[in-house]
Amino acid sequence: MALDNRRRSGGRSARRAARMAHDFTMLPGLTNRLPLCEVMDAAQVERIDAASMDILENVGVVFRDDIALADWRNAGAKVEGETVFLDRGLVRELIQTIPETFTYHARNPANNVDLGGNKSVFVPMTGAPYLRDLDDVRRNPTLDDLAMFHKLSHMMPAMHSSAHHIVEPYDHPISQRHLRITYSSMKYSDKMFMGMTTSPKNAEDVLDMCAILFGETFLETHPVVTGNCNGNSPLVWDETMLGAMRAFCRRNQPVLCSPFVLGGANTPASVAASVAQLNAEALSALAYTQVIRKGAPAIYGHYLSTVSMKSGAPMAGTPEISLMNFMIGQMARHYGVPWRTSNTLGGAKTFDAQAGYESATTLSAVMHAGANYIWHSAGWNEAGMHCSVAKFIVDSEQCAMAYRMAEGINWSDFGEALAAVPDIGPGGHYLGHPHTQENFQSAFFMPEMFDNNSIEQWAAEGSIEITERALNHARQLLKAYEEPKLDAGVNEALLDYIARREREIPAADALNQDY
Amino acid sequence: MALDNRRRSGGRSARRAARMAHDFTMLPGLTNRLPLCEVMDAAQVERIDAASMDILENVGVVFRDDIALADWRNAGAKVEGETVFLDRGLVRELIQTIPETFTYHARNPANNVDLGGNKSVFVPMTGAPYLRDLDDVRRNPTLDDLAMFHKLSHMMPAMHSSAHHIVEPYDHPISQRHLRITYSSMKYSDKMFMGMTTSPKNAEDVLDMCAILFGETFLETHPVVTGNCNGNSPLVWDETMLGAMRAFCRRNQPVLCSPFVLGGANTPASVAASVAQLNAEALSALAYTQVIRKGAPAIYGHYLSTVSMKSGAPMAGTPEISLMNFMIGQMARHYGVPWRTSNTLGGAKTFDAQAGYESATTLSAVMHAGANYIWHSAGWNEAGMHCSVAKFIVDSEQCAMAYRMAEGINWSDFGEALAAVPDIGPGGHYLGHPHTQENFQSAFFMPEMFDNNSIEQWAAEGSIEITERALNHARQLLKAYEEPKLDAGVNEALLDYIARREREIPAADALNQDY
Repeated sequence: MALDNRRRSGGRSARRAARMAHDFTMLPGLTNRLPLCEVMDAAQVERIDAASMDILENVGVVFRDDIALADWRNAGAKVEGETVFLDRGLVRELIQTIPETFTYHARNPANNVDLGGNKSVFVPMTGAPYLRDLDDVRRNPTLDDLAMFHKLSHMMPAMHSSAHHIVEPYDHPISQRHLRITYSSMKYSDKMFMGMTTSPKNAEDVLDMCAILFGETFLETHPVVTGNCNGNSPLVWDETMLGAMRAFCRRNQPVLCSPFVLGGANTPASVAASVAQLNAEALSALAYTQVIRKGAPAIYGHYLSTVSMKSGAPMAGTPEISLMNFMIGQMARHYGVPWRTSNTLGGAKTFDAQAGYESATTLSAVMHAGANYIWHSAGWNEAGMHCSVAKFIVDSEQCAMAYRMAEGINWSDFGEALAAVPDIGPGGHYLGHPHTQENFQSAFFMPEMFDNNSIEQWAAEGSIEITERALNHARQLLKAYEEPKLDAGVNEALLDYIARREREIPAADALNQDY
Repeated sequence: MALDNRRRSGGRSARRAARMAHDFTMLPGLTNRLPLCEVMDAAQVERIDAASMDILENVGVVFRDDIALADWRNAGAKVEGETVFLDRGLVRELIQTIPETFTYHARNPANNVDLGGNKSVFVPMTGAPYLRDLDDVRRNPTLDDLAMFHKLSHMMPAMHSSAHHIVEPYDHPISQRHLRITYSSMKYSDKMFMGMTTSPKNAEDVLDMCAILFGETFLETHPVVTGNCNGNSPLVWDETMLGAMRAFCRRNQPVLCSPFVLGGANTPASVAASVAQLNAEALSALAYTQVIRKGAPAIYGHYLSTVSMKSGAPMAGTPEISLMNFMIGQMARHYGVPWRTSNTLGGAKTFDAQAGYESATTLSAVMHAGANYIWHSAGWNEAGMHCSVAKFIVDSEQCAMAYRMAEGINWSDFGEALAAVPDIGPGGHYLGHPHTQENFQSAFFMPEMFDNNSIEQWAAEGSIEITERALNHARQLLKAYEEPKLDAGVNEALLDYIARREREIPAADALNQDY
């Protein structure tokens, strides 16, 4: 009876069918219908904007990359050493050509999604050097573990992407790893995915593989993959990131321009001033994407945290992180640029209640902030040091619940539903009423990962807490997994490409060893 | 170094002093500065209002109480049998005299709090037949356990009330229990509290004890205690609740008019129609408070859940509960009446990640909905069947974090903070900057119950998950507890009153056995 009713069904027969089986169909890209939590008035938005522009004009941004410095000189910016001073007029002119909305294309066109405005997507976490596996054991991941997470991404309806290195596959040489990661994203899921930006050359490999999968011409005019470029806050962009950014922008593929903010450590000890600096950093990279290629899609990004006074580690679920998300959403909308944030973060070492509070608080803030590219939406724990299978499942369901909330109120059967009130009358019960029987499942979300049995029933079933429930569910999903087969020719071409590049790239390429 | 920095401090010396010790001072009543999540436009608010008024006029509400039926006849309502048909004009006229805002008075005037508009309070959970104790053992509670929770309520800065029977003290006869519960609320904390409504006579006892504590005249003009009156949805109010309501209203003390909604079970299978019915129910009781005493303070209440298809039990943290909270907030503001909701709910059997997700999701919805009387804000788990000491501590800290979020952005030192940006420049570190050292603690909340150490440090400290951390913290708090002594004369008078009433009330009073 624990059925999946995540989807608004189209009619009675559709609803009946949905009762019969789990539905792994991806939810359409999210349309966030909530009124957003705008904590600044127009004057305060202008105040942040002005402060950011002052920083760009007077403090400047370091681009540790000769090509970028030359590009900026050509674009008319003042460059002194590695520092670029950006005039506000130039910044405003450049960011104007960033598309406010665009469509991501997946290899299964049914999984295409829109981004920007009130259109949003959930993307799993990436980059974990450890996983907590199907037995909740913490260890280094392998390519098989990565494939498992790509399969789970494929099956969880609220995940709109299979991302890239959800976990870091330690059983393959680091210099060649990006090839296998990209192939795994492409093979085990037909949703959109992300591309490695660990070096400019690695980024080129990803884009070459995308060209094999989608065709070079298609790629030129359709966003299919996302690269992430982290800044080094305060106010530095490095060569690796800028080179990868150029690779993506030149092929017209979106990049996340992501300052990496640890509030108070690499920003001032002030929410508003932290946002002003972060905003300056994001603007500098967004502007550079348009220097590289006018009109290329780009996304206002950030990784955002406050830091523990005890350990200096990033924290999650703190009130200042929520407030900064609300503010950054307003800034991104002010500039008319889609924006990325981080979701369901946690600093807990296990999947305990801390992880639950942190993740749900983050998810809620992200939804009320109106984020578009909602990254790290499943699995993140231990400040990103591990991806938990159990948490991946639960976070994914939480995203489905947030998705339902963001759909807003369903008024379509208000009259019909109200008609049940006089039928039942004071003191009656609704469960037997035909309207209830027909609409109960579509009206109310039934979380599968939450146990709402009595304690007696729960004990009789083995006193299973949520971690074990989620791991059981993951095992069932993996049994039911069906691979969305790649076209045989495309598959062969991808494998050929990987084989050739692995011959060309030494397994112990020193350039990549520091990643 | 894990210091309590929940409070915006007034200046440098105050901030320095705050670093030296835990501060148990109650946070002032919450002023919610967030823009609220209003999911309905004005026409949709009117639509719910019209549907509710149609229900009141045409379906009617059952008042299972002869006095109430006579009162309604006198007030001009149509009464048929036990069903009262309420004309919308009469309802609107009656609720108009409910105060939009008022001040609760605590026996320590420093702990007075405002309610209504954007003024809100956090109140602990109540009514749990079990606790999970300081060893996380689930068992029936005693008066000593209740005293422990009243002490913890007193010490947690974000709790604005010690409530009443946080846990149900099974070691005292049920018929006399309300006396000991009330005394415990009054004795162990000098914050405001709640009053038992388990019978009209019990409510009178509570109010007599309040008159001893505050003086009969003071009571007449100052809200000091809150009664809760649950409705039996759909559309029934019973004799016990109505009698208790009269006791509170006649003494000018606020009651929560709380329909008890299990969405889909005792309301239609529709979010909007459930709210329309709940709204009708709340209005009928709110209107009755003004029949009892024009101008008496009253609060739009509800307990609100959706039910599990598997067990029929109430669920927590589902998207429909959030949406209904957003809608109900709008309706209460539409009528200009303060409103109560339920916070940090959970259906988990232990303090696992499920409890964390459920509680944080509920807390977030409640804050964005703009609730005023935020009940069940600490300890609730297992659908209210137990109060967990560990969760009580963590929830209380979560409320302090939400409180901080609701304060909004601090712009006061924006210029000063921005001045640090050119000081530090690209690639620098802020932690050593004087502005950071002076402001870090007041700028960023440091959750004490979240562990943000590295896994190595965490393991070295014993791999302690949040439940054990919170229980350790509770033990420390209880060691540091200082009783806010009652005036000796008042204390004696209260004990005399209890002794007299316990002589008068048989320990096995049949009337009370069904509670």
